[in-house]
Amino acid sequence: MSLPSQEHRETRLANGLVVVTEAMPHVATVALGVWIGAGARDEAEDEHGLSHLLEHMAFKGTARRSAQAIAEDIENVGGDINAATSVEYTCYTARVLGEDVGLALDVLGDILTASSFDPTELERERGVILQEIAAVEDTPDDLVGDLFVETAFPGQPLGRPILGRPETVSAFTPDGIRAFVERHYRPGRMVIAAAGAVEHEAVVDAAHRFFGAMPEGAGPDAPAASYRGGETRLKRKHEQVNLMLGLPGRSFRARDYYATQLFAQVLGGSISSRLWQEVREKRGLAYSVDAFHWPFSDTGVFGIAAGVAEEDAAAFAEVAVDTLRETAATLTEAELARAKAQVKVGLLAALETPGGRIERLARQMLAWGRIVPMHELVARVEAVDVAAARAAGTALLEGAPTLAAIGPLKTLPPLGTIAARLRG
Amino acid sequence: MSLPSQEHRETRLANGLVVVTEAMPHVATVALGVWIGAGARDEAEDEHGLSHLLEHMAFKGTARRSAQAIAEDIENVGGDINAATSVEYTCYTARVLGEDVGLALDVLGDILTASSFDPTELERERGVILQEIAAVEDTPDDLVGDLFVETAFPGQPLGRPILGRPETVSAFTPDGIRAFVERHYRPGRMVIAAAGAVEHEAVVDAAHRFFGAMPEGAGPDAPAASYRGGETRLKRKHEQVNLMLGLPGRSFRARDYYATQLFAQVLGGSISSRLWQEVREKRGLAYSVDAFHWPFSDTGVFGIAAGVAEEDAAAFAEVAVDTLRETAATLTEAELARAKAQVKVGLLAALETPGGRIERLARQMLAWGRIVPMHELVARVEAVDVAAARAAGTALLEGAPTLAAIGPLKTLPPLGTIAARLRG
Repeated sequence: MSLPSQEHRETRLANGLVVVTEAMPHVATVALGVWIGAGARDEAEDEHGLSHLLEHMAFKGTARRSAQAIAEDIENVGGDINAATSVEYTCYTARVLGEDVGLALDVLGDILTASSFDPTELERERGVILQEIAAVEDTPDDLVGDLFVETAFPGQPLGRPILGRPETVSAFTPDGIRAFVERHYRPGRMVIAAAGAVEHEAVVDAAHRFFGAMPEGAGPDAPAASYRGGETRLKRKHEQVNLMLGLPGRSFRARDYYATQLFAQVLGGSISSRLWQEVREKRGLAYSVDAFHWPFSDTGVFGIAAGVAEEDAAAFAEVAVDTLRETAATLTEAELARAKAQVKVGLLAALETPGGRIERLARQMLAWGRIVPMHELVARVEAVDVAAARAAGTALLEGAPTLAAIGPLKTLPPLGTIAARLRG
Repeated sequence: MSLPSQEHRETRLANGLVVVTEAMPHVATVALGVWIGAGARDEAEDEHGLSHLLEHMAFKGTARRSAQAIAEDIENVGGDINAATSVEYTCYTARVLGEDVGLALDVLGDILTASSFDPTELERERGVILQEIAAVEDTPDDLVGDLFVETAFPGQPLGRPILGRPETVSAFTPDGIRAFVERHYRPGRMVIAAAGAVEHEAVVDAAHRFFGAMPEGAGPDAPAASYRGGETRLKRKHEQVNLMLGLPGRSFRARDYYATQLFAQVLGGSISSRLWQEVREKRGLAYSVDAFHWPFSDTGVFGIAAGVAEEDAAAFAEVAVDTLRETAATLTEAELARAKAQVKVGLLAALETPGGRIERLARQMLAWGRIVPMHELVARVEAVDVAAARAAGTALLEGAPTLAAIGPLKTLPPLGTIAARLRG
């Protein structure tokens, strides 16, 4: 596999904001966005859900533009604009034709530095978010994910649902939002990334114009988080039991981060994986089953997720645990080689779209303060041998388990039984 | 906006199967797939769910490969393989490095022409599909879509849920599956499409090798379908009412197809749309609201979808209907220009990924027997004027409405009330 050369360009504005771009030949559009290295885990106790509400309120009007004008300015040129809030960062992205990069950065700069946070708009937007929360409540597949993270990191901002709760969302004020922005939306922890039909100088010029006046500074670090584990069961009259079984994972800074990723890939990252073959192909227990590893900057969580019939919940838990233990003991050279090939093709495929590129540029810059060359990433993946991948799996088994389940739960064994089986 | 030149190449095998490719410079991977112009609407009364079950069974083993070998052969080289069943077609796709195109077509040819349909594997796969059906049953956002189409096209194969029902899925036999394959998986209605790091000759060679022995023929046409409308209400103790309101739409062959698409775009296709502004931005009633138009080869359905609080269901229905009527009467030049720009940038963006290209190539070939040049598509979009877009909206209003709703339904008005308001 030959690796494409990476030709990113990088400029740091006087206030600390980093601009990073990658031109892609043969592409007419540009994906661009602003990433802020703050999210749900940066919220104080009385701010639960505020980073997400703020992400919504950014679109509700500025000194220069109404909510409708924000939407129309981007969409008049055929573009689109969106935003997302996660645990450790928030991003605001747009996709436009190459010639409209300046316009897109004008709109993004406007909503990120001059939002009005009008009280009437805030009142209406609460209604929108209450419906967003209600939709999660009605969707077991989504809700179980929230319960899982909350159970793995109990009582910690990192574990709380990103949308907040109806009671916290109802209490926010314009001043509270402004205080969060002033504390966390600081150029020292912001990255503008653009890829596609783009010239670096034009992006830097627009970044100067629309973000250059922000006073320097980087905002406080989020409080440390640590995995604890435990059990949450939510009895509901559903057709399926939605369940997630977890163990402490790794930070993306950990020495054995890639070994853990590759272990999760072999265990349940694709249709040739151990879990897929055991749970779906050999037993027909679930429509899909996944093993995943979610890393954060200082901790992580590993897990297995599936939806099964009530009468199969116990059988599924046993097969999942046994397959996990078995994989940690017997993962093969061929399986590891396949997992490495999948990770490498995935890295390559992400480079083939403007959206994939900016995600990578921005997140690497926030995590490492630099763009990690592709050959360096590939070398880290290649360096994992069978012993290291098995050791990463064995290390997972030593932690306290997490169980989150929603549905008819009569046959699902208690966490203690699962924990005992995990220890063998 | 300058349009990229389209350099597709096209070859018809002796048995009628069409191979169409587009090489993309600066891309290392290739997306490829086999499309069959048959899907759920081609099922006989006692075959409900069979096209989808067949799509699953294709992965369960052939004369040369076990289910595990099918997965491993593709994933060993870092690729992935997937499939999907829709109303009018079924597709089997893979993504691999350019050098592995031959391997991917070997696997696809194997599973499409030499599947074993082993009875034991069938027994297990039923369990998988029953869980897939159960997951839809537990996800109101998905379930309401099934109810909606079923209500719009009652008693017709086109309207039935693609997954089938537990009782139909439980009745299928290996012979029934083989009969469906022999009837519908015929080269005269199949397209192989590939885009990315690909050479046309190599794809044609592999297509000859792995699909060339299929006997020619095209299989029967699906029975005609026609929109009827009606009402389905499913009372559930949910946080939200999930509802879809529909009207008869257009075939993608209809003269006013593009006018209808553009009308739907102005009404509720993006965040500057009338519905988004009225429902979300001005009233905060829903987290998202969409207007959509689903065209088929001989009919179509238009609709509006949202999830709202029980106490807001009546208000939402009124706003949705009033906005629809208002838009049909007053849609502006500026709105139409914006909708056109969005459609055009969308067409362009789809050309920027291998996956977007093959979808386009295959579906155009199945629908029209040729690849429609981009300038021709753009010309059809440009040809729609304000009068035509308003007329398309007004024509929608003349049909019988469809209402599908799930959740707490006390305040949702009956269809008759909504129908009366639609007529003004």
